[in-house]
Amino acid sequence: MTDIRSQALACRDAAHAVAALSSAAKAQLLNDMAAQLLADQTAILAANAQDLEAAREAGIGPAMLDRLLLNPARIAGIADALREVAALPDPVGQLTHRDVRPNGIVVERVRVPLGVIAMIYEARPNVTADAAALCIKAGNAVILRGGKEAIASNQAIAASLHTAMAAHGVPAAALTIVSDLRREAMLELLQLTDIVDLAIPRGGEGLIRFVAEHARVPVIKHYKGVCHLFVDAAADQGKALDLLIDGKCSRPSACNALETLLVHRDIAPAFLPQAAAALRQRGVELRGDAAACALVPGMAPATEADWDAEYLELILAVRIVDDLDAAIAHIQRHTSDHTEVIATRNAANAESFVAALRSAVVMVNASSRFSDGGQLGLGAEIGISTTRLHSYGPMGLEALTVERFVVRGEGQVRV
Amino acid sequence: MTDIRSQALACRDAAHAVAALSSAAKAQLLNDMAAQLLADQTAILAANAQDLEAAREAGIGPAMLDRLLLNPARIAGIADALREVAALPDPVGQLTHRDVRPNGIVVERVRVPLGVIAMIYEARPNVTADAAALCIKAGNAVILRGGKEAIASNQAIAASLHTAMAAHGVPAAALTIVSDLRREAMLELLQLTDIVDLAIPRGGEGLIRFVAEHARVPVIKHYKGVCHLFVDAAADQGKALDLLIDGKCSRPSACNALETLLVHRDIAPAFLPQAAAALRQRGVELRGDAAACALVPGMAPATEADWDAEYLELILAVRIVDDLDAAIAHIQRHTSDHTEVIATRNAANAESFVAALRSAVVMVNASSRFSDGGQLGLGAEIGISTTRLHSYGPMGLEALTVERFVVRGEGQVRV
Repeated sequence: MTDIRSQALACRDAAHAVAALSSAAKAQLLNDMAAQLLADQTAILAANAQDLEAAREAGIGPAMLDRLLLNPARIAGIADALREVAALPDPVGQLTHRDVRPNGIVVERVRVPLGVIAMIYEARPNVTADAAALCIKAGNAVILRGGKEAIASNQAIAASLHTAMAAHGVPAAALTIVSDLRREAMLELLQLTDIVDLAIPRGGEGLIRFVAEHARVPVIKHYKGVCHLFVDAAADQGKALDLLIDGKCSRPSACNALETLLVHRDIAPAFLPQAAAALRQRGVELRGDAAACALVPGMAPATEADWDAEYLELILAVRIVDDLDAAIAHIQRHTSDHTEVIATRNAANAESFVAALRSAVVMVNASSRFSDGGQLGLGAEIGISTTRLHSYGPMGLEALTVERFVVRGEGQVRV
Repeated sequence: MTDIRSQALACRDAAHAVAALSSAAKAQLLNDMAAQLLADQTAILAANAQDLEAAREAGIGPAMLDRLLLNPARIAGIADALREVAALPDPVGQLTHRDVRPNGIVVERVRVPLGVIAMIYEARPNVTADAAALCIKAGNAVILRGGKEAIASNQAIAASLHTAMAAHGVPAAALTIVSDLRREAMLELLQLTDIVDLAIPRGGEGLIRFVAEHARVPVIKHYKGVCHLFVDAAADQGKALDLLIDGKCSRPSACNALETLLVHRDIAPAFLPQAAAALRQRGVELRGDAAACALVPGMAPATEADWDAEYLELILAVRIVDDLDAAIAHIQRHTSDHTEVIATRNAANAESFVAALRSAVVMVNASSRFSDGGQLGLGAEIGISTTRLHSYGPMGLEALTVERFVVRGEGQVRV
């Protein structure tokens, strides 16, 4: 048997032990994991220094070095995140439906853990602890396949978490760090349909496409966020401008940042020049259609590719549309199914916009930057799905469980 | 562009029209589809006669000929099924959560259609109408790829349903019958990740494995149901016998029929000989472990393969277990994640059984034969999932939708 298969089988066997933990036991375990990480800080920092040195020798750039870096403040942040997960409500055992059938059987639907979750990610060692905490909180075992740049850090974090798990009688295999980091081993992990219930890739679009294209196990992922803001004729212009600036400028590298602005032609002459000035003041480059360029001197003309671009930087595509229907048609054509926003004081237009679009998150008069598990009240976020299956939009603990049926009777039979 | 891709693209474009229908419009459409089927009975029966003749010429056996056969009573049955789906509650638009965040944004989770569903099935023409009705009721467009034996029947049924759809302004492409029935075309359909949101195979294990192994689009399926009944020491013996006979004998070919009986050793001497006699009277062949064989003269010895067998006929595997934990361990090892039953009057044992097992349906003192969408109150069943993602167990209309986020604010921004 290959290493990866035997590691995964051990993880699956350990899943029963995690699923059997009570809510109180899981909360205590996660708090103990947080304390243990702080207690093991010296060993974790030493392992991280080893990763950093190897990365520097390999000529890795400053952005990835920073993602890889741990220090006491970052370890404290990881421990805090574990304690926050510990304090969240336990989704396992939640009763979602209850029905008494005419024959008297009581049919309940109750959340159970998914089983074994494989996380595929890149160089951030904090994901190791975060993802483990969320999976365990939802009663799952987890297989973690991080980037090879972070392997010493990841193993040191896992060793620390294993210490806390052992004190709770949870086998170390319930939190498995993949030891074979060759690409062939990752491919094999993604074929283990009899073991892995769900794979979640986190990282750049290249990694996500690789996982989605090669996996036979179910994958939940999002490729990109081409988020739209439509400023309706009936918008409050001051609020629309706030939404625009927050959406584009507060964190342009986030997938919930705005990439395209659609403006109703009736409000465009009043709104767009002012909005363009405010954006330019903040360093935003604008690329518009002909009508937009006519209203804003010096705006660069947009090409067809701009309507599908996820810039992830201070660039914004701008288009004037004839009406609400034209805005909806544009979004339907170019949506990434992530997040769309309408700014309007017209309630009927707002509801038409919500009804016509099937993106994961649709907002009325609220910033696209709220499209985030924490902001939407999920408590934490394991990932985002733009696939309309199982989970759609930001995924919290509930997305790491599934509803099943529990039926109680008094000997009823069908025939 | 290939035929299959252009058909699928047209179906995706038509999905917006289905998603835009109100609940009342969908109910009326489905009732009109039922009436139209009855009105077009002559044409449908003529097409079916053509399929039957070709099948007879091809030397197809009586079981498949019967599945293929339509007659006025069966068409009336299909129309009734459409009317039942029409009368079900609409899952689209259902509000599942609502939360006002500290900053005042109102976060709702609301069900939306999946989009485009591909049904892959065999020779039963009734699936064409059933599946179309369920998909449309949940706001989806549907691509139907039935067996080539039923192609004329399926096209005649679709033509009839298209007549009703046209009167409601719904494009025919929203209900697409795959015209290219070559296996390569099915393979291509299963790769269309940019178009097909979900594929549901219905039929024998061979078809389902083919679809699951070749699809890149998400697939929901179940391979088999190896359903267990555990008769606890504290069981009511009369009720346990009722559950056993109903589970094994009422429809042995169904996936929710019992395949394995586990009996607590303390009750086995009293229960098993009597149960064996009752089963044998109904023609059931028993295959037991050594302890069971010792209690029932003439029982054939079970081999290891019997514990994993889905017989789908009048055969039952029987094992004596030492206690509840041994029953749970046996099921955990041999489960197909379909349905497990405990017969007991001990409430603590019942809850331990429910908690320890993660099968899609777990029953206490109720027949495994209730593991069915209609019996569990889902109103109808599009399929069964034994995969712990999106839907687990019998799937009704809700499984053809997904929850997304709708956020309403008054101009709130994040920063």
